[in-house]
Amino acid sequence: MDDLEAFRTEGRRLVDWIARYLEGGEKLPVLARVRPGEVRGSLPASPPEKPEALEAILADVERIIVPGLTHWNHPGFFAYFSNSSAPPAILAEMLSATFNVNAMLWKTSPAATELEVVVLDWLRQMTGLPEGMFGVIQDSASSSTLVGLAAAREAVPGLEARRRGLVGQARLRMYASDQAHSSVEKAGIVLGIGQDGLRKIGTDADFRMDVRALAAAIREDRAAGWTPFAVTATVGSTSTTSIDPVPEIADVCANERVWLHVDAAYAGSAAVVPELRWLLRGCERADSLVMNPHKWLFVPVDLSAFYTRRPEVVKAAFSLVPEYLRTPEESVAPNMMDYGVSLGRRFRALKLWMVIRAFGHEGLAARIREHVRLAQVFRGWVAQDTAFEVVAPTPLSVVCFRWRGQGLSAEDADRANEKILDSVNLSGEAFLSHTKLGGRTVLRLAIGNVRTEERHVQKAWDQIRNAVGLVNR
Amino acid sequence: MDDLEAFRTEGRRLVDWIARYLEGGEKLPVLARVRPGEVRGSLPASPPEKPEALEAILADVERIIVPGLTHWNHPGFFAYFSNSSAPPAILAEMLSATFNVNAMLWKTSPAATELEVVVLDWLRQMTGLPEGMFGVIQDSASSSTLVGLAAAREAVPGLEARRRGLVGQARLRMYASDQAHSSVEKAGIVLGIGQDGLRKIGTDADFRMDVRALAAAIREDRAAGWTPFAVTATVGSTSTTSIDPVPEIADVCANERVWLHVDAAYAGSAAVVPELRWLLRGCERADSLVMNPHKWLFVPVDLSAFYTRRPEVVKAAFSLVPEYLRTPEESVAPNMMDYGVSLGRRFRALKLWMVIRAFGHEGLAARIREHVRLAQVFRGWVAQDTAFEVVAPTPLSVVCFRWRGQGLSAEDADRANEKILDSVNLSGEAFLSHTKLGGRTVLRLAIGNVRTEERHVQKAWDQIRNAVGLVNR
Repeated sequence: MDDLEAFRTEGRRLVDWIARYLEGGEKLPVLARVRPGEVRGSLPASPPEKPEALEAILADVERIIVPGLTHWNHPGFFAYFSNSSAPPAILAEMLSATFNVNAMLWKTSPAATELEVVVLDWLRQMTGLPEGMFGVIQDSASSSTLVGLAAAREAVPGLEARRRGLVGQARLRMYASDQAHSSVEKAGIVLGIGQDGLRKIGTDADFRMDVRALAAAIREDRAAGWTPFAVTATVGSTSTTSIDPVPEIADVCANERVWLHVDAAYAGSAAVVPELRWLLRGCERADSLVMNPHKWLFVPVDLSAFYTRRPEVVKAAFSLVPEYLRTPEESVAPNMMDYGVSLGRRFRALKLWMVIRAFGHEGLAARIREHVRLAQVFRGWVAQDTAFEVVAPTPLSVVCFRWRGQGLSAEDADRANEKILDSVNLSGEAFLSHTKLGGRTVLRLAIGNVRTEERHVQKAWDQIRNAVGLVNR
Repeated sequence: MDDLEAFRTEGRRLVDWIARYLEGGEKLPVLARVRPGEVRGSLPASPPEKPEALEAILADVERIIVPGLTHWNHPGFFAYFSNSSAPPAILAEMLSATFNVNAMLWKTSPAATELEVVVLDWLRQMTGLPEGMFGVIQDSASSSTLVGLAAAREAVPGLEARRRGLVGQARLRMYASDQAHSSVEKAGIVLGIGQDGLRKIGTDADFRMDVRALAAAIREDRAAGWTPFAVTATVGSTSTTSIDPVPEIADVCANERVWLHVDAAYAGSAAVVPELRWLLRGCERADSLVMNPHKWLFVPVDLSAFYTRRPEVVKAAFSLVPEYLRTPEESVAPNMMDYGVSLGRRFRALKLWMVIRAFGHEGLAARIREHVRLAQVFRGWVAQDTAFEVVAPTPLSVVCFRWRGQGLSAEDADRANEKILDSVNLSGEAFLSHTKLGGRTVLRLAIGNVRTEERHVQKAWDQIRNAVGLVNR
């Protein structure tokens, strides 16, 4: 109900509840313990006819929803990439919902558009990207990569993909390493390039794209009648956080005149740490680049920052505003809907602005620096334990490791690692995920939560070693 | 800063501030009065190095951001489609930001996934869509339409668009009326079908798709070597809220074996009113359909509900999970990332669940019924004033009208209507938008805000008539 008294009372109570949740989050099991269908079974199959009190609804959140969640904000969340939301961002999201502006046109929400311009320029400065790169917020890295590759397609000379589509056209091909995120392949599917239009390039022992193989593949494809049009380089791959050699890839792209898109969804944020700025070396030459503040800059999902040196191409790929409606002040006041798929756009800039101000550049750098340090500490523990091995470099905050399972077959060792993983995750104290490297099961510990301290990492390590005992019993 | 004491203090204060904002929202001008660049000029060009107090940041929200916003939650917001956010949804968004779960896999947030399944089923029941339609939340109708048409492309026999892409394939063509939303064209561009692959079908005097023309166009295109693959019918078009004859369109689609996508982004929500259920007549035969609770069900952007009778095709179009990772419990516990572009997915179901419970089905129906009544009242006022004319049917809550400008040339009358619009919008009391119908400038009054009452509509009408006096002076 549109009842402001109830909103006031319950809202104040909710703020306190949230503070307690964040404070005591580690008392809840990280990984949800519900069975499939259990939450659904606790909810009525049909909607209520009559209004219910806000108090009762919020009580159900606590009773039904909270126990059914995997707690991403738990300091023991070490799976995938660890996201977290800082308190100022939580208030910002409440405000965005209150204003409920649609940041599609400058006119429909001038402050939302201009704050987006300003805050993405702040982030550009903090990460050392060159002046003049244009930023726009997308929901997710998947969308950002789709936008980048759509622009790349639009940039192919003579294609006119926008008007003519792809049927009867040149066979387009794009490139990414075998460690690239699935969103690259998904973008290819959506754009009509197809899975066959993506050629995966091998990687070196450190899981970085083999640039010679890239250059050879492009030459070979051209000779076979393909039209190479885009390369996606990964800065911080999903499995191991490996960093492709962007400067060398940029050389290949320049020679071959193909679009360079950089997927720095996870690692890009780390460039706010001065001594980690090298991460984005070469990215000043990228045609487009994505980094996700919702991954490692403490803003809640969703907020993906898309940058491009060629905003006019992105706009040409997407804008459906006819020329005669364009306004002279657009360089100051762009219409952000022209740079992506969605016309309806939430006011997302607010939370990033509030987080940057609440932490300051130094505060953000300090947290990320500490996460990287914690990962090195954990790596050290693993390396010192002869029963375990570290299986990939740890440039940032993700450690890839496995229990050796000495004396076991490869299959049995893999199964044992899966059991260790399950056992740790069932403990409720920590939640790790896994990956496959060279066909073998590998455990991943990813640090990124704003509330994670050394004691949480220590606890995870204890759990892992305990689990080995349990599995081998 | 991750300071929970400041969060508690400022959070409570913010809840009170929001209540006052919502209560007194109509004291602010609806349309922002800032000049391009003004908000930007009030903000530092570079990010702060040191942390700032939450209190100071929130003071800047009030000082810099609020005056720079167009207030979508103002009861005098009558532009585009009027969105609004009800208080329970505002709290829900704060909670979603707190939990910060990523609803990509069931496992990563069981309650978020299962609540999404349940609440979209509630909405399905409330709007009378048939059992068995599968629902998934997307960010915007643009994304939902992209997903629907990507599935349509995937369903073309023998194409294998996913793997092979579109080059060297059959020339695909899709259809929508000349009143359809630009997102249909945008989806065609993104999908590699191109603008040439969309054929726009003419409309009747009431702006509804001409079904005979559709059938003829499909036949003609087939004869010319095109492969017709999808029709998008619009239920509630953007300009006039006209409703395409879906049952007849569904017949054509069945005969021609092409995918039927229904864009009910605005009007679909109105089917929660029992006497307006006819709106979705024929939609039980749609292969996919979109309706936007963030448009007319009082949840803040973004929340678009995508329904499909053929979830397996949508999944085939998007999923990149290999077969051997699929789990038997997926019918109870689907992985929602398999049904769209983005892998990262916010916990959006919470706000819709809280709003449906807080209002009840009856409460939601009552609000929408009242909005439709207010539109008819306004239409009556316009019709009775001989200086004005109503220029389109008003089946729902949007009235299209114009000042006749008797004695003026068509161009001068258009210009006068633009001046009337500007004058009303500058008043700060109401914000209307315009459209073009038959080449002429038309004013639109769109009702949809949860706080709009008859007095606000009356005030807008007074402003409009005042403006006529000013323009003619």
